[in-house]
Amino acid sequence: MIHFKEIAKIMGALMVLIGLLMLPGAAFSLHYGETIFPIVVSASISLVIGLILFFSFSKDDRNIRKREGYLIVSLSWLVMAIFGMLPYLLSKEIPSFYDAIFETMSGLTTTGASILTDIEAMPKGLLFWRSMTQWIGGLGIIVLTVAIFPLLGIGGIELFVAESPGPTSDKVHPRISETAKRLWYVYVGLTLLAMLLYWAGGMTFFDAINHALTTLATGGFSTKNASMAFYDSAFIQYTAIFFMFLAGTNFTVIYFGLLGRFKRVFRSDEFKTYAFFLLGISVILYYPIAQRADFSGEEAFRTSLFQVVSLITTTGYVTDDYTQYGQGVTFLCFMLLFLGGSAGSTAGGIKFVRHLTFIKNSWLEFKRLIHPRAVVPLLINGDRVTTRIITHIMNFLLIYLLTFVLGALVMSLIGYDLPTSLGAVATSLGNVGPAIGQVGPVDNFSFFSPFAKVFLSFIMLLGRLELFTILILFTPFFWRTN
Amino acid sequence: MIHFKEIAKIMGALMVLIGLLMLPGAAFSLHYGETIFPIVVSASISLVIGLILFFSFSKDDRNIRKREGYLIVSLSWLVMAIFGMLPYLLSKEIPSFYDAIFETMSGLTTTGASILTDIEAMPKGLLFWRSMTQWIGGLGIIVLTVAIFPLLGIGGIELFVAESPGPTSDKVHPRISETAKRLWYVYVGLTLLAMLLYWAGGMTFFDAINHALTTLATGGFSTKNASMAFYDSAFIQYTAIFFMFLAGTNFTVIYFGLLGRFKRVFRSDEFKTYAFFLLGISVILYYPIAQRADFSGEEAFRTSLFQVVSLITTTGYVTDDYTQYGQGVTFLCFMLLFLGGSAGSTAGGIKFVRHLTFIKNSWLEFKRLIHPRAVVPLLINGDRVTTRIITHIMNFLLIYLLTFVLGALVMSLIGYDLPTSLGAVATSLGNVGPAIGQVGPVDNFSFFSPFAKVFLSFIMLLGRLELFTILILFTPFFWRTN
Repeated sequence: MIHFKEIAKIMGALMVLIGLLMLPGAAFSLHYGETIFPIVVSASISLVIGLILFFSFSKDDRNIRKREGYLIVSLSWLVMAIFGMLPYLLSKEIPSFYDAIFETMSGLTTTGASILTDIEAMPKGLLFWRSMTQWIGGLGIIVLTVAIFPLLGIGGIELFVAESPGPTSDKVHPRISETAKRLWYVYVGLTLLAMLLYWAGGMTFFDAINHALTTLATGGFSTKNASMAFYDSAFIQYTAIFFMFLAGTNFTVIYFGLLGRFKRVFRSDEFKTYAFFLLGISVILYYPIAQRADFSGEEAFRTSLFQVVSLITTTGYVTDDYTQYGQGVTFLCFMLLFLGGSAGSTAGGIKFVRHLTFIKNSWLEFKRLIHPRAVVPLLINGDRVTTRIITHIMNFLLIYLLTFVLGALVMSLIGYDLPTSLGAVATSLGNVGPAIGQVGPVDNFSFFSPFAKVFLSFIMLLGRLELFTILILFTPFFWRTN
Repeated sequence: MIHFKEIAKIMGALMVLIGLLMLPGAAFSLHYGETIFPIVVSASISLVIGLILFFSFSKDDRNIRKREGYLIVSLSWLVMAIFGMLPYLLSKEIPSFYDAIFETMSGLTTTGASILTDIEAMPKGLLFWRSMTQWIGGLGIIVLTVAIFPLLGIGGIELFVAESPGPTSDKVHPRISETAKRLWYVYVGLTLLAMLLYWAGGMTFFDAINHALTTLATGGFSTKNASMAFYDSAFIQYTAIFFMFLAGTNFTVIYFGLLGRFKRVFRSDEFKTYAFFLLGISVILYYPIAQRADFSGEEAFRTSLFQVVSLITTTGYVTDDYTQYGQGVTFLCFMLLFLGGSAGSTAGGIKFVRHLTFIKNSWLEFKRLIHPRAVVPLLINGDRVTTRIITHIMNFLLIYLLTFVLGALVMSLIGYDLPTSLGAVATSLGNVGPAIGQVGPVDNFSFFSPFAKVFLSFIMLLGRLELFTILILFTPFFWRTN
């Protein structure tokens, strides 16, 4: 039996949160002399329905088990999307329902793909809400990774984020809340710091806060049509690179770094792999970009580093059209859509720790072929990874790739060409933003059919919730009472 | 220490075999009034060097262990390719070294991709040798799957082909030779039967024997420029469909079928999945093809079934250009390049039993999430599959996909567009033949650069030898003495 009362109460609380977080947008609307009506009405609707739900039901924590957990997570993003799109629809700035669901889901999943053809023409209040949806998505994913996925056993990477910075205690619950709280402090603190630096670098206060919100969420929504390419300031671009890098790092690792415990930082195999790949691929991409006559060496390196960090951390800001450097560079950038940042960060996608597990296991498979009787354990962060987790991670990788291929099949059945179909699904599933084909770094998603928009929104949600959370709802044993 | 003497002796035997199998081609040359010089000289070179090597070294079976096994398998295909290309080069019918290596490797790996722009202009003797390379490749793969891969532990599917039809005995060696012999009888018998039916259906004797050789090998080389589309006879096309289907079936299953033991046939989960997919996808593909005004219902179904069976069994004959039915059908056909026939058949690619293991394990992963303490074993053919094998198979799938992606990256770095890069590598790795982009079903591979041709030949070899056999040679522990 599934306990729907508890679920309804939690959804109510979420609606209240969403309603409250809409209000700062109204303040910006007021400041810039825009109508505050759409945002205030949307916020009121969310608050009223949320409060009714919250106070109509009583909650018994013992009734929240695995099944309720999956439903709460899946429904949370749906509820947030439904109420989150109200400001777009009520203001008629995004009059189409399909466009609104796409833009909201792209925000809440920290993807950053957009159907807007002229971002700068949007009212500031709505733009702020648009950035806020990404920040909320990032916040949500921290709760999920730290507090909920480990309980549900999703994704097989629970072990690598579980090394929590909170005080150890036998009671699981307080330790997890404590951990989540500390990571939120990191998230909020870094957002404020990014905002100050963007502001100091020459952005307006409004642009600085928006970009700070979408940087730390690895979201990638910008308030400028040209995205980060609008700012030709090296200071701003390096600031963005630095904070994207942090946002794609396991927040636990950042926490240890802030405490000065660098030994713990460098014990993380995922962090080292992540940093190594960012730098390595930037160096590779530097060569084609450096061929440009209009770029200095520093500009070429910065451009390379920016796109690589942006794609690998699944942020999706762009300062350059990477598809202009030929088939090889385009393909390389397409591949980056499949990396993902670190587990325990706000980045989407596959995550480095999964790739690392696969690569290490492959190496050991070869070793086992030559020495069948040797016991060769797989170590990550110095700890042995069980066969159970290895199997789960490899299965995750395969289901991820299968979802990608079947998704691209659907897009091609609608009629989109191969690069567009592959690109749109890869970037949606990885929560990145830009892709290849007709959805390259300087394009947008407005031309897709309504069905394609809803479909890609679903793919974004699948990717953001690590596939299993959503897919399990479609299995018979989820609904079977035993 | 690796025992090279034994390896050299076996290579010598192989060269003798290759030399002998060239001679029927000379007979055709004689019959058709062509020069027999290139084939006879090539055969003589192979025979002489082979005999010298064979008699120069003595062999001690105890010295052939795992390492020697890997080297023997990998070198076998290389040696066959080097001597197999001599007739093309000496006749100057394929004057380029790169073209000759591509065509020979495409033959020996039963791929069927061709650099020939006018097949019908080639001398008959050489065409026969070209078809023979595929038949030799098919023969070789039966030995490998039955006798060698299980000893090496390659590919994780040894369990599913090991259910051998030979008499049970405690001594492994005689049982394996016995099994291999029985399966060769099946292979030779079916080839003869296919030849007779092709001949009866209206092919010339020469065309019938050539197509029989390349059908049973799931190779796909044709003696006609239009491939099987040359024959508008329904009888010939259904004959081809039937024998492609058999060639992609586990030969052990066929053996049981021939003995009338159908219970054993239907105990094979892989066979059932394979048959189900062939039919299911043919039905799906029927609808777009049936839209054609110039096709009757039967023609549309036959065309659909033919392309699906040809692609899934990795044969690669075509009777229609499947890329003309839009993006969706093209993408679907592209996906078929990744299926592969059954383990223990001459088909290349991933093989159904691996897909089945992955799909079943995914299903169980979901079950395990809901019921973490339940013991849910994975059953194939009614037998429990160990975690060790599941891990190995999933690792194989991931390495296969990684090889595919990195291969496509190399092709795109040379400068080929995305569909061509993806298509050429997918079809080479899966040993299929036709693909998408510039290497669609009516195109050929002649336009590729010399480097691309050698690279794709290498990819074909990787795919044919189940990746690990070749890749392990590049690991340090293979060469380290312990």
